[in-house]
Amino acid sequence: MSSRFPLITLLTDFGSHDTYVGQMKGAILSVCPDAQLVDLAHELAPGDIPAAAIAWADAVRAFPPGTIHLGVVDPGVGSERRGIAAEIGDWKFVCPDNGLLTMLRQTWPLLRAVELRNPQWWQRAVSPVFHGRDVFGPVAGHWAAGRDLLDFGPMIVDPLIQIPIPVPETGGRTVVGQVIAVDRFGNLRTNIVAARLIGPSEGWTFEIGPHTVRGLSRYFGEQPAGMPLALIGSHGFLEIAVNQGNAAQQWNAAVGTTVRVTQSKT
Amino acid sequence: MSSRFPLITLLTDFGSHDTYVGQMKGAILSVCPDAQLVDLAHELAPGDIPAAAIAWADAVRAFPPGTIHLGVVDPGVGSERRGIAAEIGDWKFVCPDNGLLTMLRQTWPLLRAVELRNPQWWQRAVSPVFHGRDVFGPVAGHWAAGRDLLDFGPMIVDPLIQIPIPVPETGGRTVVGQVIAVDRFGNLRTNIVAARLIGPSEGWTFEIGPHTVRGLSRYFGEQPAGMPLALIGSHGFLEIAVNQGNAAQQWNAAVGTTVRVTQSKT
Amino acid sequence: MSSRFPLITLLTDFGSHDTYVGQMKGAILSVCPDAQLVDLAHELAPGDIPAAAIAWADAVRAFPPGTIHLGVVDPGVGSERRGIAAEIGDWKFVCPDNGLLTMLRQTWPLLRAVELRNPQWWQRAVSPVFHGRDVFGPVAGHWAAGRDLLDFGPMIVDPLIQIPIPVPETGGRTVVGQVIAVDRFGNLRTNIVAARLIGPSEGWTFEIGPHTVRGLSRYFGEQPAGMPLALIGSHGFLEIAVNQGNAAQQWNAAVGTTVRVTQSKT
Repeated sequence: MSSRFPLITLLTDFGSHDTYVGQMKGAILSVCPDAQLVDLAHELAPGDIPAAAIAWADAVRAFPPGTIHLGVVDPGVGSERRGIAAEIGDWKFVCPDNGLLTMLRQTWPLLRAVELRNPQWWQRAVSPVFHGRDVFGPVAGHWAAGRDLLDFGPMIVDPLIQIPIPVPETGGRTVVGQVIAVDRFGNLRTNIVAARLIGPSEGWTFEIGPHTVRGLSRYFGEQPAGMPLALIGSHGFLEIAVNQGNAAQQWNAAVGTTVRVTQSKT
Repeated sequence: MSSRFPLITLLTDFGSHDTYVGQMKGAILSVCPDAQLVDLAHELAPGDIPAAAIAWADAVRAFPPGTIHLGVVDPGVGSERRGIAAEIGDWKFVCPDNGLLTMLRQTWPLLRAVELRNPQWWQRAVSPVFHGRDVFGPVAGHWAAGRDLLDFGPMIVDPLIQIPIPVPETGGRTVVGQVIAVDRFGNLRTNIVAARLIGPSEGWTFEIGPHTVRGLSRYFGEQPAGMPLALIGSHGFLEIAVNQGNAAQQWNAAVGTTVRVTQSKT
Repeated sequence: MSSRFPLITLLTDFGSHDTYVGQMKGAILSVCPDAQLVDLAHELAPGDIPAAAIAWADAVRAFPPGTIHLGVVDPGVGSERRGIAAEIGDWKFVCPDNGLLTMLRQTWPLLRAVELRNPQWWQRAVSPVFHGRDVFGPVAGHWAAGRDLLDFGPMIVDPLIQIPIPVPETGGRTVVGQVIAVDRFGNLRTNIVAARLIGPSEGWTFEIGPHTVRGLSRYFGEQPAGMPLALIGSHGFLEIAVNQGNAAQQWNAAVGTTVRVTQSKT
């Protein structure tokens, strides 16, 4: 059964001055004209699968159940890598099987997945270098228009591709994690989940390289402009930032930079 | 009463490779699935409230009455600054109370404003660092879906925050204003309104730093490629430009640069 | 007759931090509130008519018949250059008459075109520097809402403006073409159509400056990461790329760079 205005989001490494995202939308709307399309993010670093996996993990909970999330960060396009459609948590996903679902599955269960093998739901002619337009987009559109998951191909029973995920190390009063994403403001999203930081907020010390922040803030403006701070980001993970500044630039921090968290004795 | 396809625009300082705008749209569509969403502008300089205030003042008249304009340039997110919903001119606005409405109110009357205090229209859990997703977006969605302004909180009776607006100085035959915005083409939007430039168009001289332009053009191509010109921009204010060039780069001009206008004796 | 959710795409050289695209959408939705709007591409180089002409030629086939494509790359705005609405192939186009349709017409026939001369379908006040908002956008909206092409002005019988298109030269076993577009990945889209490259794929040699690629690949991953390759792009033309790299940067190639293709004796 199809709902009115089915919601489809797009996550890609395509650029705003190219027409690739537009072409994908044309392919979707050709089969589902009343879809509600939302750009989740574009212009990821070319082929940056971890960035896309984190983006999905941080963003999907903002969307209503049943939303179809289409992800095309696909350096292996045209090769033997599989195309998949999957149900994870309350949402639906269409993407290449290259690890894009890895982070999501830390939080939500993989319910069902199929391999995209039924070309009747694809464009008649498939370019080996643009499955976003010719395979994934049309499948997302047909799914939104009411087709069943099992129409698109056989159930997958073997494991999906997983990318390695850096896991924080805990020892005594310390947690050692790392920066796994940097946003436009230069805020540093770490892999240390909020639940690790229990106890009084002033009891924590955060070290990045030679820089130290003491205490956990709730929001940016709690510190003076230009001052560093640590807080729980909107994704539920520890974030290091500079109020009205750019922590990544000021501290030369990037994805992979180590963050050491220590709880003081009390 | 709710109209079909209620129109909501978004104005933010978020980036295209982050998912923040997408998450705001997910929150809106969760409560108003048939909203028509339009990106007004994104990637403003981080926290640049004046730029957002000017963008709204220049753009809203292109939208039909009743359009909801959602603005999230919000460096004070999480602090004591208020969230507001307001009716100004023919349109509706949802934003933090930090000066974003200042320029609009130069032209259109503030009809009613409420403080966002009723959490029943917000996300159940509100992140102190992302009110765009958890407060402003949901309120915009509920307003679009037919709720009344007064549902969102109590009427505001004290003044809203105003940011300082540079006002041109007039003396004899001269007007001294300044550049208040620069667009992608390097065109320099000043704060000198068209109505100040009466009389024959060839009677005016425009000075920026050591550069002088004589006469007012109607459009770019009226001057040869590479030549500077002055015209009335699509916003109704004096604009300095270079035909098929970039005035900001060529003249090292930016927001704050002085523009002196002189009417010749006739 | 108007269809539900008529589809309109936008192609411009406006930037994401300006409100120009948003204002155009406001103008469209003022007359056709249920239009489905798709950003085809923005942030083209300012005034780059050839880039826009190529973008349209490569992208429109992804859209359903009847889609209205609105193009505003318009350095001559306000001058005597005409505004036009045209039917080409299965689609509709609204744009200035400055060459934007040139590449499309290599592939699809121009069926009908009118000059935009009936101001009843425009904004009441037309800025001489923003016809995208005040003329082209409203016309696209009214066309989408069901007006007939002939409502917008008189049929054009004289030729439309054509921009020069570089044509490959063929001689013996060689084809000499050039790069005509570069995408975000640095992939080099040439003007050599796939049909020129007949015979066994390993029989071809591709030269760009001092660099040589042997054989035609089907997709990027067919070569090791960092290795150059030649393939048929999703647009149906020869493309030179580097797997997981950036051919434009690595080889200092750009629009206009010569590409020489040779078929080996067999």
